[in-house]
Amino acid sequence: MDFKKYIRDIHDFPEKGVTFKDITPLLKDAEALQAAAEAILKMIGDVKIDKVVGMESRGFFFAPILASRLNAGFVPVRKVGKLPSDKISRTYSLEYGKDTLEIHADSISPGEYVIIHDDVLATGGTAKATCQLVEDLGGKVVQCNFLLELLSLKGAAKLKGYPVRSLISF
Amino acid sequence: MDFKKYIRDIHDFPEKGVTFKDITPLLKDAEALQAAAEAILKMIGDVKIDKVVGMESRGFFFAPILASRLNAGFVPVRKVGKLPSDKISRTYSLEYGKDTLEIHADSISPGEYVIIHDDVLATGGTAKATCQLVEDLGGKVVQCNFLLELLSLKGAAKLKGYPVRSLISF
Repeated sequence: MDFKKYIRDIHDFPEKGVTFKDITPLLKDAEALQAAAEAILKMIGDVKIDKVVGMESRGFFFAPILASRLNAGFVPVRKVGKLPSDKISRTYSLEYGKDTLEIHADSISPGEYVIIHDDVLATGGTAKATCQLVEDLGGKVVQCNFLLELLSLKGAAKLKGYPVRSLISF
Repeated sequence: MDFKKYIRDIHDFPEKGVTFKDITPLLKDAEALQAAAEAILKMIGDVKIDKVVGMESRGFFFAPILASRLNAGFVPVRKVGKLPSDKISRTYSLEYGKDTLEIHADSISPGEYVIIHDDVLATGGTAKATCQLVEDLGGKVVQCNFLLELLSLKGAAKLKGYPVRSLISF
C-alpha cells in the first residue's frame, strides 16, 4: 500500500513556515489503518516485547494497537503534570527552549524488553528522552519505532546506538 | 477478570479533594490490557462500525485498538488548536467554566456508524459534545463506550437517547 497517499501536508502549522505531516487521513481509513499496523508489526518482527511505550499524544494512536498485537503492556510517556502517580522525568532541549517528559516509576521493570513508538521522528529529542526514561527504569530499548521519519532533520543520528525503524520516509 | 484490581485511586489529583481513577496499571499489564479490549469488544457486539472516535488524550488508549479490531477507521476528537486541517467545534460547560472540542470536518461521512470511546464517563459533558460533533457531520452514534463509569456523577443521564456501555462501574 502506498501509505504516503494518506499523509497530508498542512502548511504553516503549528506555526508559520512549518509544514506539518497530518496522519489523520491514514487513521480514519479502515484499510490503511489496518495495513499500517500490519506493516509496523512486520518491521518489529518476531521478538519478545514486554512493553510498548507511546509518546503523548500522537504516539498513543498506534502504540496501544502494537501492544495489544504483541501481547505486551502499554505505557504512556506524558508531558509534565499529566501522570498521576510516582514518576521520573527527563528534560531535553528543543530548537528554542526545553521540554520535559514523564513516565510512571512502576511502569517498566528492570530487564524488560521495550519498544518506543511515536508517530513522527523529527529531530529525535523526544525519542532520545524516552529511551533514557526507559533505561532509567532498567528497561532495554529493543527498537525506536515510528510511523514516519523526516530524513532531513537527522533524528536517527541522535538515536545512534538504538535500532530505528520507520514505516514511511520523507 | 476483576478489572477493578488494576484501577488505582489517586487522592487529590488533579486537584485537592478529587480522587482520580488511574488506569495505567491496567494498561501496562499485558493480560489485563488484552482482557479489557476483548471485554469491550464483547460489549459492542457484532455490529457494523465505520469509525471509532476517541477523545483526547486517554480515550486514545483503547479507541485505536477497538478501531483496528472492528475493521473501522479511527478518528481523534481533540482540544482546541491540536487538529491541523479544516474542523468543526463544540463548546460545553464544565463545573467551572467551559471547554471546547474539535473534530476534522472530513473525518466522518454522512450515514456512517460511529462508536465514541473515552476512558472514563464522569459528568458526560465531553461525551455529549463528542456525540454532537459526530452528528454535526452526519454520523450516527451507535454506542457511547467507556472503560469505566463513575455512577455518582450521573453521566449516563446526560447521554439520554444514546446507548451507553461501560466495562467497569464505581
